[in-house]
Amino acid sequence: MKTRIEYDSIGNMKVPVDAYYGIQTLRANNNFKITNKTIHPLFIVSLAQIKKAAAITNRDSYTLEVNIANAIIYACDEIIAGKFHNQFIVDPIQGGAGTSANMNANEVIANRAIEILGGVKGNYSIVHPNDHVNMAQSTNDVFPSAGKLTVLKMLPKAILELQRLYQATKLKAIEFDSVIKMGRTQLQDAVPIRLGQSFNAYASMIKRDIDRLIKVKDEMLTLNMGATAIGTSVNASTDYLNNIIKNLQIVTGVNVVQSEDLIDATQNLDGFVTISGTLKSCAVNLSKMANDLRLLSSGPKTGLGEINLPAKQNGSSIMPGKINPVIPEVVSQVAYNIIGNDFTITMAAEAGQLELNAFEPVLFYNLFESIETLQNATMTFIDNCISGITANKERCEELVNNSIGLVTALCPHIGYKKASELAKEALSTGRPIKEIITSKRILTPEQLKEVLNPFTMTEVDRTSDVKINKHAI
Amino acid sequence: MKTRIEYDSIGNMKVPVDAYYGIQTLRANNNFKITNKTIHPLFIVSLAQIKKAAAITNRDSYTLEVNIANAIIYACDEIIAGKFHNQFIVDPIQGGAGTSANMNANEVIANRAIEILGGVKGNYSIVHPNDHVNMAQSTNDVFPSAGKLTVLKMLPKAILELQRLYQATKLKAIEFDSVIKMGRTQLQDAVPIRLGQSFNAYASMIKRDIDRLIKVKDEMLTLNMGATAIGTSVNASTDYLNNIIKNLQIVTGVNVVQSEDLIDATQNLDGFVTISGTLKSCAVNLSKMANDLRLLSSGPKTGLGEINLPAKQNGSSIMPGKINPVIPEVVSQVAYNIIGNDFTITMAAEAGQLELNAFEPVLFYNLFESIETLQNATMTFIDNCISGITANKERCEELVNNSIGLVTALCPHIGYKKASELAKEALSTGRPIKEIITSKRILTPEQLKEVLNPFTMTEVDRTSDVKINKHAI
Amino acid sequence: MKTRIEYDSIGNMKVPVDAYYGIQTLRANNNFKITNKTIHPLFIVSLAQIKKAAAITNRDSYTLEVNIANAIIYACDEIIAGKFHNQFIVDPIQGGAGTSANMNANEVIANRAIEILGGVKGNYSIVHPNDHVNMAQSTNDVFPSAGKLTVLKMLPKAILELQRLYQATKLKAIEFDSVIKMGRTQLQDAVPIRLGQSFNAYASMIKRDIDRLIKVKDEMLTLNMGATAIGTSVNASTDYLNNIIKNLQIVTGVNVVQSEDLIDATQNLDGFVTISGTLKSCAVNLSKMANDLRLLSSGPKTGLGEINLPAKQNGSSIMPGKINPVIPEVVSQVAYNIIGNDFTITMAAEAGQLELNAFEPVLFYNLFESIETLQNATMTFIDNCISGITANKERCEELVNNSIGLVTALCPHIGYKKASELAKEALSTGRPIKEIITSKRILTPEQLKEVLNPFTMTEVDRTSDVKINKHAI
Amino acid sequence: MKTRIEYDSIGNMKVPVDAYYGIQTLRANNNFKITNKTIHPLFIVSLAQIKKAAAITNRDSYTLEVNIANAIIYACDEIIAGKFHNQFIVDPIQGGAGTSANMNANEVIANRAIEILGGVKGNYSIVHPNDHVNMAQSTNDVFPSAGKLTVLKMLPKAILELQRLYQATKLKAIEFDSVIKMGRTQLQDAVPIRLGQSFNAYASMIKRDIDRLIKVKDEMLTLNMGATAIGTSVNASTDYLNNIIKNLQIVTGVNVVQSEDLIDATQNLDGFVTISGTLKSCAVNLSKMANDLRLLSSGPKTGLGEINLPAKQNGSSIMPGKINPVIPEVVSQVAYNIIGNDFTITMAAEAGQLELNAFEPVLFYNLFESIETLQNATMTFIDNCISGITANKERCEELVNNSIGLVTALCPHIGYKKASELAKEALSTGRPIKEIITSKRILTPEQLKEVLNPFTMTEVDRTSDVKINKHAI
Repeated sequence: MKTRIEYDSIGNMKVPVDAYYGIQTLRANNNFKITNKTIHPLFIVSLAQIKKAAAITNRDSYTLEVNIANAIIYACDEIIAGKFHNQFIVDPIQGGAGTSANMNANEVIANRAIEILGGVKGNYSIVHPNDHVNMAQSTNDVFPSAGKLTVLKMLPKAILELQRLYQATKLKAIEFDSVIKMGRTQLQDAVPIRLGQSFNAYASMIKRDIDRLIKVKDEMLTLNMGATAIGTSVNASTDYLNNIIKNLQIVTGVNVVQSEDLIDATQNLDGFVTISGTLKSCAVNLSKMANDLRLLSSGPKTGLGEINLPAKQNGSSIMPGKINPVIPEVVSQVAYNIIGNDFTITMAAEAGQLELNAFEPVLFYNLFESIETLQNATMTFIDNCISGITANKERCEELVNNSIGLVTALCPHIGYKKASELAKEALSTGRPIKEIITSKRILTPEQLKEVLNPFTMTEVDRTSDVKINKHAI
Repeated sequence: MKTRIEYDSIGNMKVPVDAYYGIQTLRANNNFKITNKTIHPLFIVSLAQIKKAAAITNRDSYTLEVNIANAIIYACDEIIAGKFHNQFIVDPIQGGAGTSANMNANEVIANRAIEILGGVKGNYSIVHPNDHVNMAQSTNDVFPSAGKLTVLKMLPKAILELQRLYQATKLKAIEFDSVIKMGRTQLQDAVPIRLGQSFNAYASMIKRDIDRLIKVKDEMLTLNMGATAIGTSVNASTDYLNNIIKNLQIVTGVNVVQSEDLIDATQNLDGFVTISGTLKSCAVNLSKMANDLRLLSSGPKTGLGEINLPAKQNGSSIMPGKINPVIPEVVSQVAYNIIGNDFTITMAAEAGQLELNAFEPVLFYNLFESIETLQNATMTFIDNCISGITANKERCEELVNNSIGLVTALCPHIGYKKASELAKEALSTGRPIKEIITSKRILTPEQLKEVLNPFTMTEVDRTSDVKINKHAI
Repeated sequence: MKTRIEYDSIGNMKVPVDAYYGIQTLRANNNFKITNKTIHPLFIVSLAQIKKAAAITNRDSYTLEVNIANAIIYACDEIIAGKFHNQFIVDPIQGGAGTSANMNANEVIANRAIEILGGVKGNYSIVHPNDHVNMAQSTNDVFPSAGKLTVLKMLPKAILELQRLYQATKLKAIEFDSVIKMGRTQLQDAVPIRLGQSFNAYASMIKRDIDRLIKVKDEMLTLNMGATAIGTSVNASTDYLNNIIKNLQIVTGVNVVQSEDLIDATQNLDGFVTISGTLKSCAVNLSKMANDLRLLSSGPKTGLGEINLPAKQNGSSIMPGKINPVIPEVVSQVAYNIIGNDFTITMAAEAGQLELNAFEPVLFYNLFESIETLQNATMTFIDNCISGITANKERCEELVNNSIGLVTALCPHIGYKKASELAKEALSTGRPIKEIITSKRILTPEQLKEVLNPFTMTEVDRTSDVKINKHAI
Repeated sequence: MKTRIEYDSIGNMKVPVDAYYGIQTLRANNNFKITNKTIHPLFIVSLAQIKKAAAITNRDSYTLEVNIANAIIYACDEIIAGKFHNQFIVDPIQGGAGTSANMNANEVIANRAIEILGGVKGNYSIVHPNDHVNMAQSTNDVFPSAGKLTVLKMLPKAILELQRLYQATKLKAIEFDSVIKMGRTQLQDAVPIRLGQSFNAYASMIKRDIDRLIKVKDEMLTLNMGATAIGTSVNASTDYLNNIIKNLQIVTGVNVVQSEDLIDATQNLDGFVTISGTLKSCAVNLSKMANDLRLLSSGPKTGLGEINLPAKQNGSSIMPGKINPVIPEVVSQVAYNIIGNDFTITMAAEAGQLELNAFEPVLFYNLFESIETLQNATMTFIDNCISGITANKERCEELVNNSIGLVTALCPHIGYKKASELAKEALSTGRPIKEIITSKRILTPEQLKEVLNPFTMTEVDRTSDVKINKHAI
């Protein structure tokens, strides 16, 4: 491998001659062989957008020569378009508060800009990673800002999937509106509900998650660009400070704003904790829904068997004909992972000290995974599960008719104690509750039809006003 | 002990003759000896408020006799005023989705109402716990609603303390505005900052927590009263459904609203998860601040020693004269506890099944502790720590003057590489960085005073425009 | 209230004249109003045992006057016997690494010893909390050692309950050995299993938890007594160092040992993390078992209904006749709480700095709760649930006979593909799988009885060797 | 792309003609696009080892034709040697309890075996994925067993690194044995310690982690091979059951054993939880040590500055000359990630239901990452940090001499109260504590040298027996 020699304060190193990254990237690569993965492509793009906006700002405030600035801008545009991503070789879990990722960007952009200006890679007298590409910036404003921009790229996609999930559950709510089934509390027979109502409840729940995520997303809009090292804007000019955000808005198309307290914004990561906490709430809901679907589709012969999930793959390598609820299962697993990630994020945020939190890399590593897997799990949840669910209407009805829970509707008429005795009798004798009620002449068959009509029990407006034969009790 | 006999579907039991609770409470007491604690007083009050509002609603819709209703209302008022709390004997961690707590309330209120009406405790033909006190209600709407009302009682107190903390840090920001000190990133010398700016950053951070908590508090306003067992309002009349919330608003003085989807609101606990997640964000911030204060006050002779925390107690049983940062230490511990509680809350919420989540009791047990300890920790943080902090101004200045970090300000003038060399020289020779700069004639002593003035380095508006002798470099 | 004046380095305070605690306890009480609870009685006893052992050691090495030592020993014995516990008023969550709890003990013991020697409480010239009671000790060895002694008192009780649980499940394994039922994987019908096998599996699982806890308990035996402030034994004599553990063994009856590295033992809390992690594993198992029981007993009419849990209380305030799985529900809740506590414990342990971990108080607060609630939950699990479980044998058999899962046993004979087709046919037509097999003459009715005998499918030794009519396939 | 058509119970699909995987893999690939990663290479190897051992066992018990068995064995050997890993395309987070991963292995092996036998890929009449490759197996024994084998491959490497870390800290303990420095508790000056003692304490702590991991590793040896679907060994012969483990021992070279309760072993994942919990304990210790190193090396001018970490890369993109503790920072981040992973693992294990836990995939995804990143972080910790640490001996000594903490050694001579007064005087006047003591004639200069000799304060054997002038006090 042909190499060039590069120097820094620590000494020199051989860098592959074709590499756009430089000595600092290489040192970081050696220091952090942790996950053997690389930083997220959207994060690379965010870094390049920031570098571009900074170069524009520095150029327009006459602190950066026009031709250097333009070369930097050009190089950034290439990276934004997806080029040179393989030159970003640092591990996503890295020490140094993200300096390695920032310098990886600075070096790749510098070397590409040098090339554009006709120079040879490594000749930093033409374009310098620190003095030119990183001008008026610090890792400490670039890195968290790039993290926020990345979240802002990812989150709308996840929200979009949740909106699709909302619609998919709403459609099922309509489709299953007439399917009467037994409600269960604590897995014990309760009172009737319509399957459509159940799906409507999922929709209502997901709606809340969407609303929360949309609101909380705004936490990501506040950037500390211009803060430089610790929020005091050392080495940033007033001009830069006044224009960097405006230029970043243009470059990204996002209405980012500048924090009113750059010192606070540089050291505290609670915005990310809040995002992650909100994702966790959503994960809890998705997993609860997935669990419900697994329960309701349990069977086919020895379970609840009220609904069927679409068969998406053979369920077993040994048991023929077995179909498993694989999609809800993967949804719950993603939820568990998001919840675990939230704890890592929480610990990372808590560990900040004084003017900086050095633990952003592991925070981003987990947060990006949480958002993307939430999106992916939701997508397969909709397309490979929810949309194809069918109801076993007869089975549902049969279970309702078997159930003793209907007796609850008698309570207002005959009191809790008497109703309990009827329930007990039905359970111990095995006689249907309706039969007991009519044989005891508590209700006439006509009254029974009305009072113990499962459908009337599913909505208050439907509740009957039948007068009961109290003397029979 | 004199006893009376009570009956339920399971059989009969001896209940202490003076007890206001009854057989169901006693069974629960036997079944759940878990924490050996009892349910929270504010939760008891919330239960009584709900029972009162329900009695009013039932009375006014002519489903509950006026004299029974009024006796129930009177009994509730007594409990709201703090009476009979010792009759609430069930464990806060209980199975049954809160039925035991709800029945404990129903029985105490029934027996007290019976007394008021001239009856003997246990004679439920006068006032019945289920048929009268619990009329048109279910544990499944009462219990979560009482939980939300309790949070609504607790949270404003916690927020109030955070607002006091905000003000305390703002006052310190003003007091310390002229104390120049060295900023540190990753615990390594960075660039100057003013101590007041640090406290202002704490204020900004706390402000965000306050804003979040105020916003998220509204999640607690949406109640499922009227949902009864599973959200279908079985056994609740239209009249009741239309009026229970209005009456609850009057009883509690809180603008609660009725969920638009009572089924969803009965089975999903994501609102509590969101509250807890927001408390967790706040806990992270408080702990970070506590950690900072411990770092800055480390010493007195072998630490950073930049600030002094007020001495609140002897620090050691063996080391005389030792004063420890006991208040920040307790703040961090409370934060860790809130974070752990959040995970219990998350698991409890995720475990909901179908029409109900049976795990609310442990959720409330943790959530109530989180809010109250947050409040208490914040209170002692302000009064026994923040307000009494003093700065070691000379020490701070001395450290700034010793530091090499000032060289950062030269970067825009001489470039990162040259500046690095100066820094390296200063570190290896031990010569002050300022001396090296003047001896090399990079700056005249006058220029030096301006460019490397730590104060000018703490704000962009203060940055100098000095022209550097580039030939000297 | 009559008071006495006490002094310390910070100033003076009025202490209630009857109080055995002194000024340092009172300051701590003011500083830490966090949980409004007090430290655990067993922890108080452990502190007193340590103080007694230290007094014996100091007396016997002639560093503490005999009459003072004996008075201290007497006072400690009283506390060990349960007296003066109400004098321990400090909050369990406290700053200062436990100094407040240690000084609370030192002051109570000193004042009681002063009384015994005929003096007036507060006259520390007779017996001094620091110089005499705390002689050769530091909070930093006393507090963690008392924590370990407390765990050693609690853990055997929890293990005992787990052993009872093991036996209870083993008994059920025998009782249910002949109950054939359908096994379910992923809640879908799998192949037959005997209910006794299921309970035997619970026993095997619990056995593992017992073994782990017994092993890991030994981590608590290694104490750092003699370490004093930071492990260097400053202010402890060689004599003391050589004898304190021996005397503590005698006082406690436990074979504690001295850490070989007192510095390590003073600053690291990984032993507690390991205990908590093992409790967490156990909690996971208990909750899984509780979940299973809730699933198997779901119904009575619309669930799996294979077993009945004993009815321990009315299940609902609104739905008559409802019996809920309240005991398994409380077990899972305790498990969630233990898991959340584990994370608090983990964070507290991770936050140790240099020569000490100041966050032991919150760690103990959580760890003690975890052990005790594990014990209590297990106790009610056995006595109010497991021991009373009955099987619905007919229901179990009926489900097996309905199921298609039996077809799995055909695979070795006819291959996965053919078996899948049969399963599919059975499911779509609703015809019993056995009927299809015989009608297709795949097996003679006699062969069928043997090959598809659910009992033979539950153990390898029972598997048949029937030859199949391969031509029929 | 040329394709072939494959069929399963669900229908047919086009599979790339060159693909070794088949229709079931492809379905899984479509269903689970979650992380966009693939399963771990060591896990692939473990799967192949199991398939090989099964083929040997089936061949030798005459249930599998010799030539088919040998072709399967040959294909497995190729995979074990690293071939065809790119044919394992399923996502590590997948629903279905690992069936997709198992079928991916079955299909790749079957198609390769078909090729070896001269057939065309997809012609499963020659070698069938289910009937031949998966013979006598189920995902439910293969998948968890492969997981355990993978852990057994990974864990020794991690332990090896911890052993290297132990040695590295031991070496530093020797190197720094004579460096006297101030000990700090709660970041406040305590009493002297030798830097070597601090590193020895790290070694002791790491030793404990190593011991725990070695012990707990044995939990992974117990496999449920032979359990098949639910532990009842359906479709496995006695012969197979008796020999599969023996053959697996030969294939893997590991002394695995068969669970005595295959039903338990198939449904419970507590062994993995215990492994993860132990990794968590270790992570806590590593992070604590990393935090200490960051504290001790803080500076260079405004921190503690007692040690120097080797400079591994430039610390800042803006601040010249800055060197940051990047390696300890990455160690803590890995620790946070392991702790978060532990929570995911805990939730996954708790979610098991009845005869199976379907959530192993996400458990393995997290557990494998935890072990590998622990190994990698430890490696860089040793080689890029610990081994290169140097001590600032003069700085350490200067801080000791400045400190007031030495006064603790006077306590046994003059009492806690008097010593406190001296400490207070020293602090308020700024006069050195030694000077005050001699000027007050509490000790002669000779006595002072002995009593307040920091070195004698670091070990009990070194403590002096000087008699103090008590009249002077």
